[in-house]
Amino acid sequence: MLPTAPTRGRLRPLGLDEVRITGGFWARRRRTNATATLAHCRDWMERVGWIGNFRAAVEGRVHRDRQGREFADSDVYKLLEAMAWEAGPSGDAALDAEIAALTDTISAAQEPDGYLNTAYGRPGQQPRYSDLEWGHELYCYGHLIQAGVAQLRALGEGELTKTARRAADHVCAAFGPGGIERVCGHPVIETALVELARATGEQRYLDQAALFVGRRGHGTLADGEFGRAYYQDDTPVLDATVLRGHAVRALYLAAGAVDVAVETGDEALLAAVVRQWEATVARRTYLTGGMGSHHRDESFGDDFVLPPDRAYSETCAGVASVLLGWRLLLATGEPRYADLAERTLFNVVAASPAEDGRAFFYANTLHRRHRGTVPPADAVSPRAESSLRAPWFAVSCCPTNVARTLAQLPAHLATVDDHGLQLHQYADADIATGGVRLRIRTDYPSDGRITVRVDRSPDHPWTLSLRIPAWTEHATVRLTEPDGTARTVPPGTATVTRVFRPGDEIRLELPVAPRWIAPDPRVDAVRGTVAVQRGPLVYCAESVDLTDGHEVDAVRVDPSAPPEDGEGDAVVVAGETRTHQDGAWPYRPFEEEAAADAAPEAERASGIVLVPYHSWANRGPSTMRVWLPTTGPDRSGTGR
Amino acid sequence: MLPTAPTRGRLRPLGLDEVRITGGFWARRRRTNATATLAHCRDWMERVGWIGNFRAAVEGRVHRDRQGREFADSDVYKLLEAMAWEAGPSGDAALDAEIAALTDTISAAQEPDGYLNTAYGRPGQQPRYSDLEWGHELYCYGHLIQAGVAQLRALGEGELTKTARRAADHVCAAFGPGGIERVCGHPVIETALVELARATGEQRYLDQAALFVGRRGHGTLADGEFGRAYYQDDTPVLDATVLRGHAVRALYLAAGAVDVAVETGDEALLAAVVRQWEATVARRTYLTGGMGSHHRDESFGDDFVLPPDRAYSETCAGVASVLLGWRLLLATGEPRYADLAERTLFNVVAASPAEDGRAFFYANTLHRRHRGTVPPADAVSPRAESSLRAPWFAVSCCPTNVARTLAQLPAHLATVDDHGLQLHQYADADIATGGVRLRIRTDYPSDGRITVRVDRSPDHPWTLSLRIPAWTEHATVRLTEPDGTARTVPPGTATVTRVFRPGDEIRLELPVAPRWIAPDPRVDAVRGTVAVQRGPLVYCAESVDLTDGHEVDAVRVDPSAPPEDGEGDAVVVAGETRTHQDGAWPYRPFEEEAAADAAPEAERASGIVLVPYHSWANRGPSTMRVWLPTTGPDRSGTGR
Repeated sequence: MLPTAPTRGRLRPLGLDEVRITGGFWARRRRTNATATLAHCRDWMERVGWIGNFRAAVEGRVHRDRQGREFADSDVYKLLEAMAWEAGPSGDAALDAEIAALTDTISAAQEPDGYLNTAYGRPGQQPRYSDLEWGHELYCYGHLIQAGVAQLRALGEGELTKTARRAADHVCAAFGPGGIERVCGHPVIETALVELARATGEQRYLDQAALFVGRRGHGTLADGEFGRAYYQDDTPVLDATVLRGHAVRALYLAAGAVDVAVETGDEALLAAVVRQWEATVARRTYLTGGMGSHHRDESFGDDFVLPPDRAYSETCAGVASVLLGWRLLLATGEPRYADLAERTLFNVVAASPAEDGRAFFYANTLHRRHRGTVPPADAVSPRAESSLRAPWFAVSCCPTNVARTLAQLPAHLATVDDHGLQLHQYADADIATGGVRLRIRTDYPSDGRITVRVDRSPDHPWTLSLRIPAWTEHATVRLTEPDGTARTVPPGTATVTRVFRPGDEIRLELPVAPRWIAPDPRVDAVRGTVAVQRGPLVYCAESVDLTDGHEVDAVRVDPSAPPEDGEGDAVVVAGETRTHQDGAWPYRPFEEEAAADAAPEAERASGIVLVPYHSWANRGPSTMRVWLPTTGPDRSGTGR
Repeated sequence: MLPTAPTRGRLRPLGLDEVRITGGFWARRRRTNATATLAHCRDWMERVGWIGNFRAAVEGRVHRDRQGREFADSDVYKLLEAMAWEAGPSGDAALDAEIAALTDTISAAQEPDGYLNTAYGRPGQQPRYSDLEWGHELYCYGHLIQAGVAQLRALGEGELTKTARRAADHVCAAFGPGGIERVCGHPVIETALVELARATGEQRYLDQAALFVGRRGHGTLADGEFGRAYYQDDTPVLDATVLRGHAVRALYLAAGAVDVAVETGDEALLAAVVRQWEATVARRTYLTGGMGSHHRDESFGDDFVLPPDRAYSETCAGVASVLLGWRLLLATGEPRYADLAERTLFNVVAASPAEDGRAFFYANTLHRRHRGTVPPADAVSPRAESSLRAPWFAVSCCPTNVARTLAQLPAHLATVDDHGLQLHQYADADIATGGVRLRIRTDYPSDGRITVRVDRSPDHPWTLSLRIPAWTEHATVRLTEPDGTARTVPPGTATVTRVFRPGDEIRLELPVAPRWIAPDPRVDAVRGTVAVQRGPLVYCAESVDLTDGHEVDAVRVDPSAPPEDGEGDAVVVAGETRTHQDGAWPYRPFEEEAAADAAPEAERASGIVLVPYHSWANRGPSTMRVWLPTTGPDRSGTGR
């Protein structure tokens, strides 16, 4: 039951039958996903007609009845993938039957040569592959193939797998050498074809994926309003130095390139993606792990253009970043990829769904300035941004992407290699693989104490590796071995090598006390502000926690006083609220502004409550901000 | 020759036959406009087929041959308007003939009932008025009518005027009471119909304009991705508190509402627009006067969301703001409207065209971070933003809007009322109206000295009013009367009342020494930075002026030292350049950042040259920024 199964690389993944999340933060969210979100997505897609599109195709009326955007098919496939990863380990027969029924609906619309898309190719529709820039046909296949692989691995080969293979065979025939030598405007087919090659042993799927990766960047797609960088067709993957353009497209392509590089042993291609990842993380990523700062084209901005109030930080880009990081971790074994994945899981992926799993953020802003634009409670939301989560969107890629990510999340916790087992993400979980059985007990991330109890172990020495998160830098991490030996370990990877005995316990204490974080001075949009992080969780001020009806923009915090733990997961910081008088014009001579700044109309606040960012907007419409201006002057100094 | 001719209001405008700009900043730009830009626009619209669309319509092939966007007709009309305002005062017969020829092409495509649009209504096209949200049919009429009024007033009634009247009559028939009781997705018809009513004395045009203004805000347009606020159909004009949505749409609507309010004596409607203008200027306007901070929907952002590096600040929004301000100035006589118009003219409208008048900025960013994306030199630019001006755009509203604004600019310099004459904008100019003739001599804004020489005057006392710009606040403005009496005057309006004699001179000295400007602390995106303004001109750092290959993001300035005049119009400031080392992650614990911040890798710069913002990007691709971080620490303090 392996979501990703490279045949080479530094680490080997574990299947969903080998890792079980048993409690805590992620167990609650996975339960909600299984019991609420999957049905929510299916019901909405029936209601808005996206499932009905397949029936309309079979009945010859899709050219006039088709509903939704050109890529609506893909969300049905993403839901099927999520259902498969959920049904496999749980053995939920009803879910299995639902997959079969949905697959019948889909596969009936597949044409004899394997082509399957409800938006193109039938009488009255645009011809097949007539709009590779925006048509998303290969993108839809990519998600169909991923669903087919999920069924194959989680439940055994079935009709969904066969439908996916027929589609993949068609893609190889249509886009292979001598065929349409172009690419799709939205990558994802690359990583899907590699996974299908892995799952079936068929080399031609890998070859086709390598062709797609190699072709991109040579301008086979049209230049347009957003430029070819939008779909990464400006520069070959091998030559690019940073991720750019549409964030989800860029990240999916990078994931596909890693897959191709790993399977073909292409070290240069892997190195190119690593280089792009490094530059992107160093200069184009939000504190939450979110990526993409342009609303206009859902794209990365220039280096250090990370405006909190215009953060797009699409949920799907968070998912894509986690999937890319997972591939890089498996390929290299380097903990930095799991570091970013942890940050993104807790602060983007976990922020998207509402507590009930029936509403979602599409964009994950770091600063909400007004309480307005509440999405419709029982209708499709026409917009990607609002002050509360929406039940469904006109473009609704995010809910199904969250669903498939939560469904496969246990596989991201641990890996094995020839020397032992590696823990990458911390959760209350049981792991059983080979001769090893571990029980991990923790209330992470609320609490930094993690106990790994060995229930079964072979009687030869092996190595347990534990990721020590980068956020612990310069704080003390205490690792206690089964014999009681305690030591302090730095960020990176800590190892315990020994002959483990049942009953052995390894204890890790990660210091999750809240701390102030400051931005690089080149992130212009947050100069003069600070944020709070507690363990991997980013915090925010939310207006519902402020007194006297203040909105968050009144808040100033004092980073000379350390933040303190509050009730539950809250944090309390020192600060004040400022009242600003509107002028006629918001700019004035520096000397005047400096004088006003030295004597602001401020009110000392006894303690300002901050809450985990992922939890915001669950208590009605509110204003919110992550980066908080400090109580000092707004102009920074007058020289030295 | 009155571009705008209200029948009531505090001030009366002067015609283009009464004010002549004789030299200096605007004379150079107007000459370039007349000799280069008008032909440039005409040639491009022939080349890209927008003029040809009218021929294609006549020949019955427009449904398959039409070029350009749905609103392409409007740019032909805007060019005609510019040509008329230019041809009238100059008496350029060739230009007059060109107007006649272009009009023949257009009017041939007009249908018997007055309908005229090349994108709709013919066999094979979408039906008339089937897409009021995006179809722009009334928007196109608006510009046609403005062109018709320009011909009528500048050259006398001709075929263009008649074509416009037929279109206006059709609009009244189709959208009057009992007709299509909706509005156009893009306002401009409102102000055009009022002007036609003024020019012809026909009440029905005014009534129709009032209907359009009153109907808006009642949700007759569909909700969509951008919301009804995008086209101001969310809230009636009477109830709105601030401009919102698409900036050009919002400003054109507000201008139309002022026109309707003035002509119908609707004080509440005028007060509503004044209130919206005040809130917009206080909270949603860039230092340059630019409006609109969202690239996605070309819209205003929330209050104080004014990111310099994502400033959209569309040239057309600058034009629209000038047109709105002009109407408010005429209605109220208050100098604040001329203050903003001056700022916008010098820093947005003047920034758009290249020195040769053959390339334009569409968006006017306040911070360009990389030199890339140079627009094609001899092709249509698919994008609204680039690091150099582009010759033509796929959506090319801005070049023709600049052209018609420069053509009518002399009319914005002065007005009259029963007491005398008012000077609002300063330029080297001659004014002759009634019994008064004035010669204004100045090198403004390079120099702040302005001499108004009386050449002719009636022999009774009258009042000369002079706008003292708001940017002079707390600086000394010296006004010397004809008898040598000198006094210091505050910002607002200074007056000289007397019996003027030929040869009398009034001398005004506006202090244009450069000064540091600081932003309101609520403009989060520029916290900890300062800018330089010299007179009405905003300045910027441009990489071509930096030594050692630095880009502008290395620059830190020291606002404790006053900026000084440099060569030509340049300004020199003290500061340093900082070299930043890339880390793996751009956020770190506050204490560490504070320590690094206290000892930056900085190099004292002997003198950093700043140039007027309007002049940037005329020396090859460059990076540029208006708001400059200071040499002090980046975090503002650690509490008080």
